[in-house]
Amino acid sequence: LQKIVECVPNFSEGRRKNVVDEIAKEIESTKDAKLLDIQMDKDHNRSVITFIGTPQAVEKAAFKAAKKATELIDLRKHKGEHPRIGATDVIPFVPISSITMDECVVIAKQLGKEIAEKLKIPIYLYEAAATRPDRANLADIRKGEFEGLSKEIGKNPDRKPDFGEAKIHPSAGATVVGAREPLIAYNINLGTNNLEIAKKIATVIRHKDGGFRYVKALGFEIKERGIVQVSMNLVNYKRSPIFRVFEMVRLEAERYGVPIIGSEIVGLTPLDALIDTADYYLRLENFNKSQIMETRLWE
Amino acid sequence: LQKIVECVPNFSEGRRKNVVDEIAKEIESTKDAKLLDIQMDKDHNRSVITFIGTPQAVEKAAFKAAKKATELIDLRKHKGEHPRIGATDVIPFVPISSITMDECVVIAKQLGKEIAEKLKIPIYLYEAAATRPDRANLADIRKGEFEGLSKEIGKNPDRKPDFGEAKIHPSAGATVVGAREPLIAYNINLGTNNLEIAKKIATVIRHKDGGFRYVKALGFEIKERGIVQVSMNLVNYKRSPIFRVFEMVRLEAERYGVPIIGSEIVGLTPLDALIDTADYYLRLENFNKSQIMETRLWE
Repeated sequence: LQKIVECVPNFSEGRRKNVVDEIAKEIESTKDAKLLDIQMDKDHNRSVITFIGTPQAVEKAAFKAAKKATELIDLRKHKGEHPRIGATDVIPFVPISSITMDECVVIAKQLGKEIAEKLKIPIYLYEAAATRPDRANLADIRKGEFEGLSKEIGKNPDRKPDFGEAKIHPSAGATVVGAREPLIAYNINLGTNNLEIAKKIATVIRHKDGGFRYVKALGFEIKERGIVQVSMNLVNYKRSPIFRVFEMVRLEAERYGVPIIGSEIVGLTPLDALIDTADYYLRLENFNKSQIMETRLWE
Repeated sequence: LQKIVECVPNFSEGRRKNVVDEIAKEIESTKDAKLLDIQMDKDHNRSVITFIGTPQAVEKAAFKAAKKATELIDLRKHKGEHPRIGATDVIPFVPISSITMDECVVIAKQLGKEIAEKLKIPIYLYEAAATRPDRANLADIRKGEFEGLSKEIGKNPDRKPDFGEAKIHPSAGATVVGAREPLIAYNINLGTNNLEIAKKIATVIRHKDGGFRYVKALGFEIKERGIVQVSMNLVNYKRSPIFRVFEMVRLEAERYGVPIIGSEIVGLTPLDALIDTADYYLRLENFNKSQIMETRLWE
């Protein structure tokens, strides 16, 4: 089956639509890459572009987009609420279908090397691609932002980039490249208006307080429906899967006599998260994804 | 999202591999059609070829395959256990993704007309494409087989074809074209070696004895595992869905204190059958298939 990778680059431009469009055009014009979404945020002055494709295509599209951003964005003139160190601030690669995290790390490293060599932008590798534990976390790499990093990069050996010289790009700054699991935004609606119950369940389910390792959760009120919601980010659906989270929330809600009245996947999900769910509930034996007719079109 | 149709033509040749290969080659060489499976049966002297693709592609590939079969298969020399009236015996179109049954009926009628006009083969429309209730059922159309139909077709007005003259093609006979729902072969394994329990559950679940309208079921022993199985054909997974069948079997087995220890989908399934299952168990609200990243590659 075809290997499919997602790429979600963040660019430090959320106001000039023509600039973001020109960057997106670089992705759209790449064969075997498919643009899925563009989010522009004026306050953050930042854009998030989502696209998928074959490993070769996403690497190529990401390079072309970073090159265009380098031409069009000048960080010396950039202001926004969101922390940033580069015109192309961060480029994560995400395994979606028939591809491992290790393969995505390889793509990240190849792209990082190419950007450093051809665009003269220092590159830091993060998350699954990190070469040092203190670079796993994006926030740590971004400390001091563009302005702080510009001063420190040549002096502090801790800030030496993974690719390229220890010298900031004057207008484009530095870029963080890496690989991470897909994120699924998932909400479960409860048949009660008692916010305390949603909050208690969120506490039980989330990593921070002893719950599932790859789940972040909060309790919210949905006033217009007179119900409450456990709102979650599933940051590794393979290890803390959606069906197990659902069943745990169901059990905890039962303890208060409250039913689950529905759930929602917000935005995009990899197909595997749904196949795994059907597989779990139907107790499937030896099911193979290539038994799904549509997947054969990706061969 | 891309419209995807399955086509499962049956040809009256199950022994000469080179003939079946030449027919398959016509499908493989059609742009936007994808060959999934070839089953040759020597005793039946019959082959079943499965392929999918865009509506235009499957129609074109089916015509090319029927044309090749007309050139290579002579029914006057054909013997086999399976009833047949044509070299290309039956061509069903099956809606798989983002397409309605009515659209598949249109494809069937277009193809039927083209085969009748260009290949001079009389065409009967069946199942969802049938123009008369007595032609819904394939077995009724095939009554008397090639030899019987050859004698009757010009004399009995009941056997007048839907397309083409009331005159058998001397070597290729007649062809049945139509549209039907996908078939899912689905088995549920029970944690007991008591065959009677599997048989009782099969009786409860199947259409014939008062169960789900689109379910056929039998009870079997799986001797090597020391268990029994409810073996089913789901002939309309939208109206008698896999998850509801699973839950009904689970309830009935519980009545005997027997658990479901696993289930299996045999062969191919449309993706929608699995998405519907995940949607049901997670109680999803407003889920749209285009939220699945991979489906965006079919746009």
